Amino acid sequence: MTRSRSTRAAFRHFETFTTRWRDNDVYGHINNAVFYEYVDTVVNGWLIARGRLVVPEASVVCLVAATRCTFHASLSFPAAIEAGLGVERVGTTSITYRIGLFRPCDAVAAADAQFTHVCVDRQTRAPVPIPSGLRQALDELAV
Amino acid sequence: MTRSRSTRAAFRHFETFTTRWRDNDVYGHINNAVFYEYVDTVVNGWLIARGRLVVPEASVVCLVAATRCTFHASLSFPAAIEAGLGVERVGTTSITYRIGLFRPCDAVAAADAQFTHVCVDRQTRAPVPIPSGLRQALDELAV
Amino acid sequence: MTRSRSTRAAFRHFETFTTRWRDNDVYGHINNAVFYEYVDTVVNGWLIARGRLVVPEASVVCLVAATRCTFHASLSFPAAIEAGLGVERVGTTSITYRIGLFRPCDAVAAADAQFTHVCVDRQTRAPVPIPSGLRQALDELAV
Amino acid sequence: MTRSRSTRAAFRHFETFTTRWRDNDVYGHINNAVFYEYVDTVVNGWLIARGRLVVPEASVVCLVAATRCTFHASLSFPAAIEAGLGVERVGTTSITYRIGLFRPCDAVAAADAQFTHVCVDRQTRAPVPIPSGLRQALDELAV
Repeated sequence: MTRSRSTRAAFRHFETFTTRWRDNDVYGHINNAVFYEYVDTVVNGWLIARGRLVVPEASVVCLVAATRCTFHASLSFPAAIEAGLGVERVGTTSITYRIGLFRPCDAVAAADAQFTHVCVDRQTRAPVPIPSGLRQALDELAV
Repeated sequence: MTRSRSTRAAFRHFETFTTRWRDNDVYGHINNAVFYEYVDTVVNGWLIARGRLVVPEASVVCLVAATRCTFHASLSFPAAIEAGLGVERVGTTSITYRIGLFRPCDAVAAADAQFTHVCVDRQTRAPVPIPSGLRQALDELAV
Repeated sequence: MTRSRSTRAAFRHFETFTTRWRDNDVYGHINNAVFYEYVDTVVNGWLIARGRLVVPEASVVCLVAATRCTFHASLSFPAAIEAGLGVERVGTTSITYRIGLFRPCDAVAAADAQFTHVCVDRQTRAPVPIPSGLRQALDELAV
Repeated sequence: MTRSRSTRAAFRHFETFTTRWRDNDVYGHINNAVFYEYVDTVVNGWLIARGRLVVPEASVVCLVAATRCTFHASLSFPAAIEAGLGVERVGTTSITYRIGLFRPCDAVAAADAQFTHVCVDRQTRAPVPIPSGLRQALDELAV
């Protein structure tokens, strides 16, 4: 992952999140771990909205294999956050999403993250191919 | 605090909050402790918006003395939450806010909370009278 | 709930919790909502340890009906927290636990909380009597 | 960062953290974002214990520039977590810590993380050399 800041053009899907008083740390900025709560939410929210994540009945579940984030600028409560979602890579059994977190009026991201899901069988936890419906849905995230 | 559920008419000020994947617990409902994050945020957000809370330079700070919440119904990610804010009691040095947390389409609250702030001197931590500007601002929350 | 601070003698069961950098707010003290994470954890941890909470297979689940906390003194990362657990009231279908949160070397609580569980049928969500095994286990929390 | 799981021999400093009921998600495992709360805490806790982080008076503060984590196995409340801390790289103005999160009885890590701090001037936010005292303290983390 390069250190360059993403622009909004890098993402097709956006969600706006509210921040919380508790998100700010002693420096008055949102704590680094909280960024991953937004990242996690934009991915899972998109999956739920597209019908690809039905908890807890699904036979295929997506486990988080790896995440990463580069912090370019601070975010702070009470400002909202705009999260852009894209796809970095689609493999046979795994998907790496690309997420940009933006201040509402900024052209470039305050943080750039990646989030890798591996599809596994709910019972055996063995990797399985990405379900075809999910694979198709991912097309809408392609830029 | 009675166990009866508030209606929206009990509140003058409303904020809508987004929920997070992490807010849900093992039962698929938002964890009880997280309700207080919304409560905390609607109070502090209103104070910041009205200019009554300037962190960290203010000479008078509001410390949380007590909170309570009655849970009537569950809330769940990914639905948003609407938080109503009112005033239960204004004393000499303390303010008790009344907060209702609503599902977007519900007429009655899923949870009713109270949140008591005590105004103290930033240095000595001794209680001080509610600043007059804040006292006036509280009028807008009266029903 | 009175405003008086509990002593350690008021509790039979204690757990020590580590705090987190993220628990501290902009004032350098642990945020009020986080106190309920400790409260929630000492109750559920005790239930799990006594075999009274088997997630998610249990036919009877305990839903949180109400919680409250009075904040006497601040807590801060990196200090640990000692949580005392007792029983305030045992009804037919509900249990109100009493929780004291102590700084490691303090004789009196920094915060006193109550936490009310209602036992319900997992499927119907209707209140049911406290299971006899749980009722017996609660005896060990009596002072 | 390779996908191989660290052993305990890769770390000189260890801290044990308690988990919380709220840490578990709908699958009964600790949510991915929460792993970063442990990571954040072991780094900042070590800095505070060594006297290298005095909040908020320090003239040099360490900002988080990037973090990443690879998840090998699940963690769950109520088990504790053992966090190992090491140094991956020390530059002129930045430090990359290496963190392993272990289940109490496991020889290999459940998660391997990296956490990069950049030292900046508290006022100007411009990068500054790592203070000499901190640079010396980092020696104790070398394997």
